[in-house]
Amino acid sequence: MTLPDLLERLRAGDQRAVARLISWVEDGDRDQLREAAEALNPAAGRAQVIGLTGSPGVGKSTLAGALVAAYRAKGLTVGVLAVDPSSPFTGGALLGDRVRMQRHALDEGVYIRSMATRGHLGGLAWATPQAVRVLDAAGCDVVLVETVGVGQAEVEVAGLADTTLVALAPGFGDAVQVAKAGILEVADVFVVNKADRDGAEVVARDLRQMLHLGAATPWQVPVLLTVAERGDGVAQLVEAIAAHRAHLASSGELERRRRHRAAREIEEVALASLRTELGELGHGEALDTLAEQVAAGKLGPYSAADQLLAGVRDASG
Amino acid sequence: MTLPDLLERLRAGDQRAVARLISWVEDGDRDQLREAAEALNPAAGRAQVIGLTGSPGVGKSTLAGALVAAYRAKGLTVGVLAVDPSSPFTGGALLGDRVRMQRHALDEGVYIRSMATRGHLGGLAWATPQAVRVLDAAGCDVVLVETVGVGQAEVEVAGLADTTLVALAPGFGDAVQVAKAGILEVADVFVVNKADRDGAEVVARDLRQMLHLGAATPWQVPVLLTVAERGDGVAQLVEAIAAHRAHLASSGELERRRRHRAAREIEEVALASLRTELGELGHGEALDTLAEQVAAGKLGPYSAADQLLAGVRDASG
Repeated sequence: MTLPDLLERLRAGDQRAVARLISWVEDGDRDQLREAAEALNPAAGRAQVIGLTGSPGVGKSTLAGALVAAYRAKGLTVGVLAVDPSSPFTGGALLGDRVRMQRHALDEGVYIRSMATRGHLGGLAWATPQAVRVLDAAGCDVVLVETVGVGQAEVEVAGLADTTLVALAPGFGDAVQVAKAGILEVADVFVVNKADRDGAEVVARDLRQMLHLGAATPWQVPVLLTVAERGDGVAQLVEAIAAHRAHLASSGELERRRRHRAAREIEEVALASLRTELGELGHGEALDTLAEQVAAGKLGPYSAADQLLAGVRDASG
Repeated sequence: MTLPDLLERLRAGDQRAVARLISWVEDGDRDQLREAAEALNPAAGRAQVIGLTGSPGVGKSTLAGALVAAYRAKGLTVGVLAVDPSSPFTGGALLGDRVRMQRHALDEGVYIRSMATRGHLGGLAWATPQAVRVLDAAGCDVVLVETVGVGQAEVEVAGLADTTLVALAPGFGDAVQVAKAGILEVADVFVVNKADRDGAEVVARDLRQMLHLGAATPWQVPVLLTVAERGDGVAQLVEAIAAHRAHLASSGELERRRRHRAAREIEEVALASLRTELGELGHGEALDTLAEQVAAGKLGPYSAADQLLAGVRDASG
């Protein structure tokens, strides 16, 4: 099936077209990714994109499931992208999260997809922004992007999302570790999940204290307690997300974030294209030869980079 | 003090020159970083670089301290780089880890330095490879690079190190989560720290099982138990690191890793230089205008990247 066919079916609300288009952007070559991004962009920009991240074990997938249920109860359609690091041991993303989301699998208003992070250097799959575009263009009211990890993943999911939720749980990192991992500044909403366990209140209190230490900001980051497994606190979480969205819209921050996101994507695409050119020079021989000299201490890395770039410029000039 | 002066003092074994040179590569502008990298590279390449990573809370700093003590007891000099994500709440890396290393602070054979990860997109500080070079050129026998985080940080520290240790502890992630985070494939040695706690044996057994599921490799990744706080298992860990190093040397893998590391650094330097050029075009106005059009759905991200690159090529052609 050609891309224009798929796009037509997508607009007609065909769920299989969503699946095929995401595979297209996930497995496609550079030209296919380009074709899809260019075609999808005009149709996207309507969905509310929510990022959900936190350490392994805090119950992100259960929380995602609870949010899906809450949005479905409001009559909204939801797309979920679970971005898992790939592992050669499984040949792709593990399926655990998908299995836990199974109860939504037969709901036409929910689309759930796991993605591997293979390929892209930055941790989040290179294809993720395009997959968000697919779900957005397909008419999803909410797109939830769930990532595993502490640190860089948060920063990246924040780059993709309008609102970034950072989930913790008692026993899985405290406030100081959140600060150390550089997460405080990317969270729009903190969720302390598994709040029926000992220590949840302490985690929440410490987070609030840590947030108070920072400079005052127009948006006061809330710290909410949930027990996602039985839905406790999820309504309040949905309200906090809505309040943040309203803040973004009224402050002009939504437009600013989206322009910033577009700028980063343009840069990434441009750099990827340059990276490919660097790699293609003499079938990579130029880089191999330079690397050998640098490793042997015969050439500095900057001089080597200059030589590599001179090659790219000659080739394109 | 000029760079040549600092380099001369470095070669003479002056600890203050180490501190100044690391500040130079951490705070320096592009030209200073270039100058330092070029000057240090010929003098580096002798140290054994060990990466140590794992989730917050597993006791990485205590483990690092125990390794320092073990190497010092063998008469080796050790440099430690603790790479912490920066936080605007602290104005830099938190000092906790440094404090815990205090007992080595007066030892002339140990150099300890915390680094922030500010600036560099990839999670590890952009300056980290240069800081490793400083310690290497200063004559450290062992350079230990300690990073916080799960996921991307492991992959990056593996790129820097000859041998990568991944630390876990009971209650801080199990084997499945290690697989999900994509860590299995970067670990040369697994360390289950806090092994006096319940569940340590289970973590170790599951890791071993998970490792057996993978394809057979020339190096069998060991899973060791330690109680770093009281030094238990540290001698065995030092032995395992030495065994891995011997394997690297005899298999030719050491040279391969170092060439690969050099190739990645050359690429990073070249891309950073291109990224700067992209940003400088019309003082960033070109990118801003393009981003606005992409965010508004009027232009695709790939077309925007093409326009940006055309500007770079015109400027350099």
